[in-house]
Amino acid sequence: MTAVASSVPGAPDPLVQVERDARGVVTLTLNDPARFNALGSAMLAALQSAINTVAADAGARVLVLAAQGKAFCAGHDLKEMAANSDLASHQALFAQCSRMMLSLQKLPVPVIAKVQGMATAAGCQLVAQCDLAVAGSTASFATSGIRYGLFCSTPSVPLVRNLPIKKAMELLLTGDFMDAATALDQGLLNRVAAPEALDAAVEQLVQSILDKPRVAVAMGKALVYQQRELGVEAAYQLAGQTMAVNMQDPDAQEGVNAFAQKRQPSWKVQA
Amino acid sequence: MTAVASSVPGAPDPLVQVERDARGVVTLTLNDPARFNALGSAMLAALQSAINTVAADAGARVLVLAAQGKAFCAGHDLKEMAANSDLASHQALFAQCSRMMLSLQKLPVPVIAKVQGMATAAGCQLVAQCDLAVAGSTASFATSGIRYGLFCSTPSVPLVRNLPIKKAMELLLTGDFMDAATALDQGLLNRVAAPEALDAAVEQLVQSILDKPRVAVAMGKALVYQQRELGVEAAYQLAGQTMAVNMQDPDAQEGVNAFAQKRQPSWKVQA
Amino acid sequence: MTAVASSVPGAPDPLVQVERDARGVVTLTLNDPARFNALGSAMLAALQSAINTVAADAGARVLVLAAQGKAFCAGHDLKEMAANSDLASHQALFAQCSRMMLSLQKLPVPVIAKVQGMATAAGCQLVAQCDLAVAGSTASFATSGIRYGLFCSTPSVPLVRNLPIKKAMELLLTGDFMDAATALDQGLLNRVAAPEALDAAVEQLVQSILDKPRVAVAMGKALVYQQRELGVEAAYQLAGQTMAVNMQDPDAQEGVNAFAQKRQPSWKVQA
Repeated sequence: MTAVASSVPGAPDPLVQVERDARGVVTLTLNDPARFNALGSAMLAALQSAINTVAADAGARVLVLAAQGKAFCAGHDLKEMAANSDLASHQALFAQCSRMMLSLQKLPVPVIAKVQGMATAAGCQLVAQCDLAVAGSTASFATSGIRYGLFCSTPSVPLVRNLPIKKAMELLLTGDFMDAATALDQGLLNRVAAPEALDAAVEQLVQSILDKPRVAVAMGKALVYQQRELGVEAAYQLAGQTMAVNMQDPDAQEGVNAFAQKRQPSWKVQA
Repeated sequence: MTAVASSVPGAPDPLVQVERDARGVVTLTLNDPARFNALGSAMLAALQSAINTVAADAGARVLVLAAQGKAFCAGHDLKEMAANSDLASHQALFAQCSRMMLSLQKLPVPVIAKVQGMATAAGCQLVAQCDLAVAGSTASFATSGIRYGLFCSTPSVPLVRNLPIKKAMELLLTGDFMDAATALDQGLLNRVAAPEALDAAVEQLVQSILDKPRVAVAMGKALVYQQRELGVEAAYQLAGQTMAVNMQDPDAQEGVNAFAQKRQPSWKVQA
Repeated sequence: MTAVASSVPGAPDPLVQVERDARGVVTLTLNDPARFNALGSAMLAALQSAINTVAADAGARVLVLAAQGKAFCAGHDLKEMAANSDLASHQALFAQCSRMMLSLQKLPVPVIAKVQGMATAAGCQLVAQCDLAVAGSTASFATSGIRYGLFCSTPSVPLVRNLPIKKAMELLLTGDFMDAATALDQGLLNRVAAPEALDAAVEQLVQSILDKPRVAVAMGKALVYQQRELGVEAAYQLAGQTMAVNMQDPDAQEGVNAFAQKRQPSWKVQA
């Protein structure tokens, strides 16, 4: 993966800016501020492509999902949807969007939403679908589709898996905005920071993940989402097997030995 | 559906008062304050009948579940249960009650609990089973059956789907009361209002729902409860299909066009 | 079951102290403070044995899980794991541990974690797996395995069933500590007390459970965990049947009759 895609001379400003640093921290920045980073089919394709690149990047360690402009993401591009209003077009659009959302969950690296502004409809879904989320204190959140007669059905999928059901139902039925402090309290966010401290708050989580071995993080993230859909007995069986396999990884053996020898671990496997 | 049933001259005061205004707002008021609106089989039958009428009313838009007197609802009628104490009677009673509870979830219109007083056992369940709930600040909540040797098993069904498991278990095992502020914090309520502001707080949610198209609300409510029982991939598939079908509705097309044309939508379909 | 096992003259200090009072309150105290009560295979075997004894004790009413020393429990014994590092040993260890954890959920009596200190990794899991949990205000919680390259996969099973998913994921990925107040707010605990008030806070919950009939508590606890894994319709069916059977118990009939006669119930069945 290359450096900032938008820096290619003469190239058009990309819908999604891709940055990857030497540590393996990939930052995808939604870059269509004039349209509030709406998830039109071109934006979805750009995001999917960038996510696929991260999935194939053995040295990637964390993905930060950020945005340019006043809004984080305003959800689907309603103008595009109005222009292509047949059932098949919409089925294809929602399938494309859900595939992108699920690919965030399937990534072997943790995904952190860095929310600097308004996140509405599928933009709110994007925050809910990430593994972790940090927002600036002026960010706000709504599942506002119902205001246009379009219930936020796909956003409801991660929403009810993040928030208490009555709060989720209220947001979905009213389309009302929720501020960052409320979103933190309700479980949609991990941290809220002053706007000028947002970068540092995200960096702290990034650094914490970088300090851990990649294999254990990948096995663990996958396990959490798998086991939560199972009954508790099946969940324990899968988790126990995952942990036993995790222990066979050289880094886990180093970590456990370091603990026994009262020293800092020195991870062997880094891409 | 007619106006206030209790206003029929000479008729006995009904167990459930039914009001329906011109906007399609149906209010069912539990009206047996002397028995704390206990859910005896007659009350359950009256509620079921009223709910069935709402289900068949194409012009209904919201259901408000309210109560007369000091208590919202004290749960099952223990005297009646003591008088009919064979297994078959109790099986029939709980089946009747669960059918009523589930029919609230199956209604195409949102159901708002308006809780002015004590909600205990199946009365607390009723609040948990509604889509939204608003309470006066002096309301209180308990799953108190265990105090009489009867664990609140059916109330536990919506309770664990609303509250964190350890809090739910504590309420179920101790039978202790929880005040309205705690119930809000734990996810059982959407809003708490001063007693004199309870009407206004409910009306605000009602009005917000009335501002939205009926079809989108109905499709969305059904989808939320269906998808939350599925794995995340199946949930996305169902949600995407629901949204594509939702978009074929004339109101959604109007809403999306109105957005594109920067004007207020004018809903076409209203019963 | 006998009195304090550690009081047997000449016997070695047991890994798990067992106390059972005349009321049927069993207290298991993790008693390996020098190793922070790590869950080595001997400790797991001692716990399993003590839990099995409680399961077979018809007069047991509540189980309190406590610990000696500065830590509540530091999780698995990493030194032992480093010394037995083949896959089969680790599979056996996690299976042993998960069996113990699940046997807490299967006990017919409620299990209360009494957390006086640090609870990390499988120690944090132990708190999450209990039905109720009370902590001293200086207790702290972490799923710290990831610091040693070993993602807390088995702890994640009860963790995601107690806490909001983003908070759970943060704890699992960072290994960071959470204080008692945060753990209470996030749903891991029922109560936090000043260290000198911890005994009294636990005793209050114990006494509340002792005031209830054993049969109803046992039926209810089992039902809650079963029904939460079902769809809502199946959950209601199971819960209704459980309640009808519960009503056939002499204590429930006494409780309901006492209510109808406006007197205190006098439980008939106590072991």
